[in-house]
Amino acid sequence: MLVIKIGGSLTDLDPLLADVAASQESLVLVHGANKELNDLSTKLGHAPRMVTSERGEVSRYTDATTMDDFLMAYAGKQNKRIVERLRSLDANPVGLTAMDGGIAIGRRKPDLRIKEAGKTKVLHGDHSGSIERIEPKLLRLLLDNGYLPVVTPPAISHDGVAINVDGDRLAMEIATTLKAERLLIFADTPGFMRDVTDDDSVIPLIHLDEVERMAEYGKGRARVKLLAAGQAIRRGIQAVGLLDGRGEHPLTRAIEGAGTWVTT
Amino acid sequence: MLVIKIGGSLTDLDPLLADVAASQESLVLVHGANKELNDLSTKLGHAPRMVTSERGEVSRYTDATTMDDFLMAYAGKQNKRIVERLRSLDANPVGLTAMDGGIAIGRRKPDLRIKEAGKTKVLHGDHSGSIERIEPKLLRLLLDNGYLPVVTPPAISHDGVAINVDGDRLAMEIATTLKAERLLIFADTPGFMRDVTDDDSVIPLIHLDEVERMAEYGKGRARVKLLAAGQAIRRGIQAVGLLDGRGEHPLTRAIEGAGTWVTT
Repeated sequence: MLVIKIGGSLTDLDPLLADVAASQESLVLVHGANKELNDLSTKLGHAPRMVTSERGEVSRYTDATTMDDFLMAYAGKQNKRIVERLRSLDANPVGLTAMDGGIAIGRRKPDLRIKEAGKTKVLHGDHSGSIERIEPKLLRLLLDNGYLPVVTPPAISHDGVAINVDGDRLAMEIATTLKAERLLIFADTPGFMRDVTDDDSVIPLIHLDEVERMAEYGKGRARVKLLAAGQAIRRGIQAVGLLDGRGEHPLTRAIEGAGTWVTT
Repeated sequence: MLVIKIGGSLTDLDPLLADVAASQESLVLVHGANKELNDLSTKLGHAPRMVTSERGEVSRYTDATTMDDFLMAYAGKQNKRIVERLRSLDANPVGLTAMDGGIAIGRRKPDLRIKEAGKTKVLHGDHSGSIERIEPKLLRLLLDNGYLPVVTPPAISHDGVAINVDGDRLAMEIATTLKAERLLIFADTPGFMRDVTDDDSVIPLIHLDEVERMAEYGKGRARVKLLAAGQAIRRGIQAVGLLDGRGEHPLTRAIEGAGTWVTT
């Protein structure tokens, strides 16, 4: 089986969803809605607040109001417009958050230590966290009965609070728990690039033992994605694709070798 | 089993959700998010447009933008905040729209004939419709495996377009298809009242053969609800409650006889 992640920065999902609906493979779709959330929050007068952690990672400060907006953008508009589109293409999707049926359970970290103007600050009341456990029962039940699960953050804390978790990480955790053969991560870049300003610098194949060295070429999200891909391979996935979700037939092109593939 | 409908005008769902989580009965929860949607649409600068049909029924004109807002309010914030709350109460909810797994399939009516200032007008591009078929497979699968399904509009048209359908009607169709013993409809009124200005005028018991006559006391939604309750009884439900969702232990009080019960 496959796990397919659709990045929240992709603006036209139709070509990818057409490929997904036509696929004969058993698969789970995971998606983000980053862009949708930024647009909504801005319109509602709660401009997104992106913060940099002490370790240099950029994340969204998710207070209770932002979590309301998050649920509306991710679980409301993006998840259900994907479900609607897939149904119009004769698939049988079931749209879920990782809270439903306890798909992804994690730990909330209410205090966020950030760097701002050279100083360390602590923001309280954050609704973010990290995934500690995937409960595969609901996803298996749906797959075994012919449904196409469409899953999006948030996850849920042990005591039942919605937590913002990274979508790529969610896809990877689901893929490893369900023992997927391949994890395909689609975004709005042509793959993992040696030089982000040069689309022709995509590295087509990266073996596990080259991941750390190659990661040095990547910045920010690209680097995090490649390291996560390496981790997925170490945890038993045969191949992870860092792929281009834009243009016609992105899934077909990926299966034929386009983008970057990480493997053993 | 029970089907419980939570009206979209209720502002504090916690007491009802606490009763639901504590219940030993197999049940499906259906909810609206009318108030949530009105608030969101207004904030986003798309004030709700309520129109009156030629037959005198008030409904929401649901253009494509309103459907986006609808998905955010119903499937995003309201559905997932209910799921989160139920999980914190140790239940195992799965939040769905009636589009997921094709739970409710209906016919879209893109043209809406309305009365405005005494004249008949036609509004195009409406995303509303009526339910023609319930596909119970997904709900049965979830119930048989110990999940608590939490279902909200929209439904889906035969060709895969999201359609705004009435939440009470959705609950009734699910209840009759699943052969529920009882359908409990909670709203922000004490029950079906002889006089809407007098909370003490609630009619505790209405037999099927009195429904038509009693309906004359009701106006607008109350009348529609009572007639729908009668229809549910004719289609095999043993009892339909028109109940007060406000205050402590609304489910316990309803089971003990509070509100209005319609029966054979």
